[in-house]
Amino acid sequence: MTSLSDLPIRADLRGREPYGAPQLGVPYALNTNENPYPPSDRLVKALGEAVMDVAGGLNRYPDRDAVALRDDLAAFLNTDTPGVGLTGRRVWAANGSNEIIQQILQAFGGHGRTALGFEPSYSMHPIITGVTGTRWVNAFRDEEFGLEPEAAVRAVREYRPDIVFLTSPNNPTGTALPLAAIEAVLDAAPGMVVVDEAYAEFRRAGTPSALTLLDGHPRLIVTRTMSKAFAMAGTRLGYLAADPAVIDALLLVRLPYHLSAVTQAVARTALAHGAELLGSVEALRRERDEIVGWLRGEGFRVADSDANFVLFGTFPDRRKVWQGMLDRGVLIREVGPPEWLRVSVGTPDEMDAFRTALKESQ
Amino acid sequence: MTSLSDLPIRADLRGREPYGAPQLGVPYALNTNENPYPPSDRLVKALGEAVMDVAGGLNRYPDRDAVALRDDLAAFLNTDTPGVGLTGRRVWAANGSNEIIQQILQAFGGHGRTALGFEPSYSMHPIITGVTGTRWVNAFRDEEFGLEPEAAVRAVREYRPDIVFLTSPNNPTGTALPLAAIEAVLDAAPGMVVVDEAYAEFRRAGTPSALTLLDGHPRLIVTRTMSKAFAMAGTRLGYLAADPAVIDALLLVRLPYHLSAVTQAVARTALAHGAELLGSVEALRRERDEIVGWLRGEGFRVADSDANFVLFGTFPDRRKVWQGMLDRGVLIREVGPPEWLRVSVGTPDEMDAFRTALKESQ
Repeated sequence: MTSLSDLPIRADLRGREPYGAPQLGVPYALNTNENPYPPSDRLVKALGEAVMDVAGGLNRYPDRDAVALRDDLAAFLNTDTPGVGLTGRRVWAANGSNEIIQQILQAFGGHGRTALGFEPSYSMHPIITGVTGTRWVNAFRDEEFGLEPEAAVRAVREYRPDIVFLTSPNNPTGTALPLAAIEAVLDAAPGMVVVDEAYAEFRRAGTPSALTLLDGHPRLIVTRTMSKAFAMAGTRLGYLAADPAVIDALLLVRLPYHLSAVTQAVARTALAHGAELLGSVEALRRERDEIVGWLRGEGFRVADSDANFVLFGTFPDRRKVWQGMLDRGVLIREVGPPEWLRVSVGTPDEMDAFRTALKESQ
Repeated sequence: MTSLSDLPIRADLRGREPYGAPQLGVPYALNTNENPYPPSDRLVKALGEAVMDVAGGLNRYPDRDAVALRDDLAAFLNTDTPGVGLTGRRVWAANGSNEIIQQILQAFGGHGRTALGFEPSYSMHPIITGVTGTRWVNAFRDEEFGLEPEAAVRAVREYRPDIVFLTSPNNPTGTALPLAAIEAVLDAAPGMVVVDEAYAEFRRAGTPSALTLLDGHPRLIVTRTMSKAFAMAGTRLGYLAADPAVIDALLLVRLPYHLSAVTQAVARTALAHGAELLGSVEALRRERDEIVGWLRGEGFRVADSDANFVLFGTFPDRRKVWQGMLDRGVLIREVGPPEWLRVSVGTPDEMDAFRTALKESQ
């Protein structure tokens, strides 16, 4: 039998394991930052009907440029962050923000180029960076998982990266960035600056979005997703806002017809029902703030969170706690700095189960 | 205003144009090898219902490994090419065969590695090769667009490519490869051998599939798509069959959750209605053979075709003919060797329009 090691894979892939959280059937899945609230029956019906509307033409290729969807996404961003005045020409979409990130690296990274991130952060950034042949360099967040402008600028000056990844709110810590840090990086960076805002809709009142910095910063890219607040993880729709020239660059590397007609129709229908889908955000924010308070009350260290998850610790043997909770039907995530664990914010029932299991698992 | 040339894109992308046939609204679109027969009302309804069935869970991520879909694809291949005995473990799926090809290049290509193709052939092979930082080298098909085993082996020995791309039937010529040529390349190649069979279902009786060579050749990858015979171009579902170790390699580079729950549901529903969707294949084969005969009768040179398109020529000014036909509402493709044009096989009405427009456009 042939094994992976018999095949001529790229040297840097040897010994690697596929990325991904365990896919386990558990009563309480609090490990991938999904939104626990499913679409309503009314939306389910609308999604099916939207697919029927396009299904008669599925023998034809989809709109390669996804123009209508990009217009709808721009309209959503204009309500999310009033005043940014975006149009579809400044928005680009792909199959999940992972594909967005890959396209950015394919256009602006590659062999001989460098991408910089501030860890702990989203682990797919270095993985996709590696797959595109780009060199990855780590800099670090501070003790509280924040990022001071001076520290960020120091790292940018040291490594001169072609691409800087910032994350706000950051995964897996939940920490949002002040605009000053992003502006300082934009001023210092010799190349592109990506602000990954996958969890932005969960940010607390007063926390800014990097969308407000797009004007005058043609090298800034802000990425978003419909997987989290929009409760559409199964649809795989990521997107970005940037200068139109950035989108011209991505057109050179995107796979033609990368977004199916079905994906475009489903995403547009979800956006049209945005009020319903985003209706859970307020409840999830409250639940998050409650669980942060409870964990602190129990004596844990807890990172401030502007997202739909909470990083808490510290555990000298976090694997044991993780396993103990799994044994009780609660799947959380062993990710980020050693001794910390991450829990996604679920429904009140799910968080009750989390609290009970955590108490029993220490 | 910022323009693309102001941005720090990779040097090898400078001056490039985005790939893609013109997306024009025309009465007769015979330019992208789509299947002209749309899904029936019954199938449209089934597709919508399948999406409703999964839509209630769209807040969750999809099955990352698309296990059920891969089983269904394996079952289809076992009917397409009896005796191959495939299972889902030997099948992999992605968003169009372009993503399949990209994943292969990401795992087995990259900087310092080389991919070889035999032109004229599918123009996305060199483009995706370049985007992944892999070096592309051309070898050439013979005058009749065939590929003799000796010539193929000579090129493989000369370039020692990490990946060889073969195409059967070949796009844009329609030419199928004898198994002997594929076997000779498999024997000589130091790395992976990809046989792109996007159009295999249209092959003439007696034309073999490289699927029959999978046993005993762990470095062989056969790619397929649901965009052509399956009439599902809008769904974007490409797939491959290979040794399980090859799929282990692709797991290291695939974007996690790359296939949406909606795509998986739609593709599985289409496969369950395979008899209907593939019901048009016989008619398209007949229409193809008729148009080949007609073109030859009119004095054109015509490449033998095992696909759903026909390459014909020669025209000292092919652009003029292409434009003349477009002016008459018939969009064909200016692609492949200079002086040749490619027409996709459409319905009898569409081919009547093609014949009329061609006669008037010379």
